[in-house]
Amino acid sequence: MKSTLAVDAMGGDLGPATLVPATLDFLAEHPAVNVILTGDEATIRAELPDNFESLESRVTVRHCEQVVAMDETPTKAMRTKKNSSMRVALDLVKSGDAQACVSAGNTGALMAMARFVLKMLPGVERPAIVQFLPSMVGSTVMLDLGANSECRPEHLVQFAIMGSVLAEAVGGVENPTVALLNIGSEEMKGNDLVKAAAEELRACDINYFGYVEGNDIYEGTVDVVVCDGFVGNVALKTSEGIARMISHLMREEFTRTAGSKLAALAARPVLKKISDRIDHRRYNGASLLGLRGTVIKSHGSADAMAFGYALQAGLVESSRRVPERIGESVLQLLAERVEQ
Amino acid sequence: MKSTLAVDAMGGDLGPATLVPATLDFLAEHPAVNVILTGDEATIRAELPDNFESLESRVTVRHCEQVVAMDETPTKAMRTKKNSSMRVALDLVKSGDAQACVSAGNTGALMAMARFVLKMLPGVERPAIVQFLPSMVGSTVMLDLGANSECRPEHLVQFAIMGSVLAEAVGGVENPTVALLNIGSEEMKGNDLVKAAAEELRACDINYFGYVEGNDIYEGTVDVVVCDGFVGNVALKTSEGIARMISHLMREEFTRTAGSKLAALAARPVLKKISDRIDHRRYNGASLLGLRGTVIKSHGSADAMAFGYALQAGLVESSRRVPERIGESVLQLLAERVEQ
Repeated sequence: MKSTLAVDAMGGDLGPATLVPATLDFLAEHPAVNVILTGDEATIRAELPDNFESLESRVTVRHCEQVVAMDETPTKAMRTKKNSSMRVALDLVKSGDAQACVSAGNTGALMAMARFVLKMLPGVERPAIVQFLPSMVGSTVMLDLGANSECRPEHLVQFAIMGSVLAEAVGGVENPTVALLNIGSEEMKGNDLVKAAAEELRACDINYFGYVEGNDIYEGTVDVVVCDGFVGNVALKTSEGIARMISHLMREEFTRTAGSKLAALAARPVLKKISDRIDHRRYNGASLLGLRGTVIKSHGSADAMAFGYALQAGLVESSRRVPERIGESVLQLLAERVEQ
Repeated sequence: MKSTLAVDAMGGDLGPATLVPATLDFLAEHPAVNVILTGDEATIRAELPDNFESLESRVTVRHCEQVVAMDETPTKAMRTKKNSSMRVALDLVKSGDAQACVSAGNTGALMAMARFVLKMLPGVERPAIVQFLPSMVGSTVMLDLGANSECRPEHLVQFAIMGSVLAEAVGGVENPTVALLNIGSEEMKGNDLVKAAAEELRACDINYFGYVEGNDIYEGTVDVVVCDGFVGNVALKTSEGIARMISHLMREEFTRTAGSKLAALAARPVLKKISDRIDHRRYNGASLLGLRGTVIKSHGSADAMAFGYALQAGLVESSRRVPERIGESVLQLLAERVEQ
């Protein structure tokens, strides 16, 4: 089946010079994919190579005059940027011309516009930012990573369902285990939010595990970790910080003396494998779940390799019908409640 | 000046067999320190070596029949464990026989008992768990790490003052910078709690920096990072988890093939230095701040080396009068408010 991705070519810190070649590389590897690049046509065309014929039929450029700035407020972007590369990419998903939108632009604006253009799935009140994170045994789906800094218990329940669908549909895990992130695994631990959410989750038709703590995300204790967007965002950024600090220390120690430089040379292939395995670019591409369509947020500073992973996420999620499956699961939950 | 530490010899997962020798090692290195070991006298004495004379005059054993179990609820421990090693160690600080209490026991019980026995400083409503964490440029004081899973803005303000005093008195930082942990550095970002706390902090006489994000903890952007205990605990445990995962990957890659084992051999001195620098044992010893006395919580699984760092923290905090200085700073803040 042919899939079409709407790619916001203007988003992110690196812009079309990085995103357009990354998209063409992706097309070369995925023969059944078409793309629509949205943004300033002249700028985009300048990045298309001369020997472009083989891919030409699969690439459309949709000219848009506007760009959403990285520091623009969501409300301003919503009101004034109706012809932006971001907005048009979302419109293409809405109209069915594309099956997924991929953008490295302003997260808040993308969320607000996606919600306005695509609408929420029935029964889902808030979109969540979701990502696969590496773990000792594979990967862990974690949400919300920053869309909702204040949540009610029912939001966490909706996140649990959405994460569970993603782990199953994309991660290939059968009947995934879902846990609430807490500050202890005993029942009495935690704040009112997680306690109330735990009670609701125990009554739901998902494979609810109980509470986990921060370390469990990377130990792979469960398949899906659920928390509010404040906690999730802090956990994610803290992880990035400590990983960067460890890399920094390693570089410092391996370049300190002539002897340590020699050791680095001897260990280079192994160090390369380690750094590849924890390379955050391989985990690029956060999903905005809860919408009636597939929207992928790439990291703003994504390079070509990282952006390829975001495109991949868009392709996989839309072709495995993640939004539709979330919709079905949420409706099923609502139906069970009515019966009770 | 002579200092006496009250050491709960029964606390933690490893018990007297680890804690008693660790305490004697510490005494050997610190000639001006005495200790009172609390717990079952026979068990403790069994861990004292034969050639003990040189230290004997500096060690007192205070027999207690009870031990607080690691999984006991704080209320139960409070009600039924008045003659426990933990409670008696705190009583010794209260009576002035010791200047600090160090325990590797049940955190919740230690907090509750410390609050009951020592009382809070005037103007401080809640104790906080505080630790120095490693950063790229030195270390960062972070609080609260799990004592208070629900906070009001004024609690975060009190934490900010306490952290600031600790960074100055123990960390040796003049006029330390203090930030609130948030999910973005822009003013509009965050939940109601941090927004309200930010407003109060701007009006306080501390060196308030603004918001920081999770990665800033390890980048050393500021000297003190303040958050509620839920967020702080998740950030701390998440950090432990990713650090452990990276170590695990390194071990896996360095032992995969004969070639990688050879590389590990060549790189061993450098790898040792790196693992020393991120060794969590060097950061063992969390302070319970806000009390009228010094109480240090060692990690439950602390080994002898780690426990030595906790004893060190108790010695330094009490000799630099951290509780008194926190008391003065909080009173000063209250006085300023009355004037306003």
